[in-house]
Amino acid sequence: MRIDILTLFPAMFQGPFSESIIKRAVEKGAVEIFLHDIRDYSTDKHKKVDDYPFGGGAGMVMQIDPIARAINKLSEERTYDHILFMTPDGRRFDQQEANKLSLSGNIIILCGHYKGVDHRVREHFITGEISVGDFVLSGGELAAAVVVDAVVRVLPGVIGDETSALTDSFQDNLLAPPVYTRPSDYNGWKVPEVLLSGNDKLIDEWREQQAFERTRKLRPDLLDD
Amino acid sequence: MRIDILTLFPAMFQGPFSESIIKRAVEKGAVEIFLHDIRDYSTDKHKKVDDYPFGGGAGMVMQIDPIARAINKLSEERTYDHILFMTPDGRRFDQQEANKLSLSGNIIILCGHYKGVDHRVREHFITGEISVGDFVLSGGELAAAVVVDAVVRVLPGVIGDETSALTDSFQDNLLAPPVYTRPSDYNGWKVPEVLLSGNDKLIDEWREQQAFERTRKLRPDLLDD
Repeated sequence: MRIDILTLFPAMFQGPFSESIIKRAVEKGAVEIFLHDIRDYSTDKHKKVDDYPFGGGAGMVMQIDPIARAINKLSEERTYDHILFMTPDGRRFDQQEANKLSLSGNIIILCGHYKGVDHRVREHFITGEISVGDFVLSGGELAAAVVVDAVVRVLPGVIGDETSALTDSFQDNLLAPPVYTRPSDYNGWKVPEVLLSGNDKLIDEWREQQAFERTRKLRPDLLDD
Repeated sequence: MRIDILTLFPAMFQGPFSESIIKRAVEKGAVEIFLHDIRDYSTDKHKKVDDYPFGGGAGMVMQIDPIARAINKLSEERTYDHILFMTPDGRRFDQQEANKLSLSGNIIILCGHYKGVDHRVREHFITGEISVGDFVLSGGELAAAVVVDAVVRVLPGVIGDETSALTDSFQDNLLAPPVYTRPSDYNGWKVPEVLLSGNDKLIDEWREQQAFERTRKLRPDLLDD
């Protein structure tokens, strides 16, 4: 899989992409990630990429020209399955979407910033708009990092133990059961006895029941699907 | 406002916190952010912070002891309004939650990693569990960065133009209207004429109508509230 990210702030990805799972996935060759600074595609002598909104109002708007140049150049080099835009009014990102995107060959993710991008970019270039939630961020960068992390995590071979991702929350529409580790008694707070019993059947039953109970209590909507 | 983040991967915050809005907010003194490596609170000679889950199964679990030490030390130094844990089974983070959290004095955000944290941490130390969506990340770090960005952004004085945040999506339960900037004609794709009219009243009406139309089409659920 190949992911091209278009952004005005490539440095924002430095920490997230050089640590933990994403770093490991890149090293293992499961994914290639390229960061492109949209400013490099500006033909303005001051490398301008934004301007005031038509009709007035607060904030700056990212111009269509540098973004169009960047997308056109990449699209000439290879075919993209998706050209995604991170925006709070996009389709809500969830685990099913992450699983689905992980089957893509090449994708582009455009990160907006400031007051937004010229709407013509969204009408003519973007094939899918994705939101990570009903809140506004200072830009699409963190949202894109979230999407990349969730997608890369489920690529084959990325997580050491293959079964680990499958027992995560949401893979079966249930929240994960509580987990405990050493010590079994901390300040008098004890681990549930069944987990220390060594009886796999009882432990499986307990986990299933806890997963169901937690889902019923915290997220009953997941059980309606 | 003061935000203390407990994490096993402090470097993940390097990009997100040294760019853009969060950097500006710190420089302006609107927020203090401290990153704490949970490993520094391990009393184990190998700085161990995780162990196998009781009852078996895939993945490692973060131990209670180093986390408890970190939280106890911070809580001795000052009072915290919230001790938050980022988890996909937490309360869904949204703009209202961001606005509310921005009124806090001091908060702690604990980032889980691997298969999760010992459940006793959540039962005995955490005062609120927050989710950024129905998907699983490799850790709570990116989710925490998302929360910090959304919260810091609405702190007074952080965004240059005070009115900018108020016209964002969700602040009035409507999606934002489309935005456009120069050029007014790009490859024959034109900006809606009303935005070039100079007639503020017509422009306001158009924007209101577009915001409503987009919300009705893309997110009718927001209109039901």
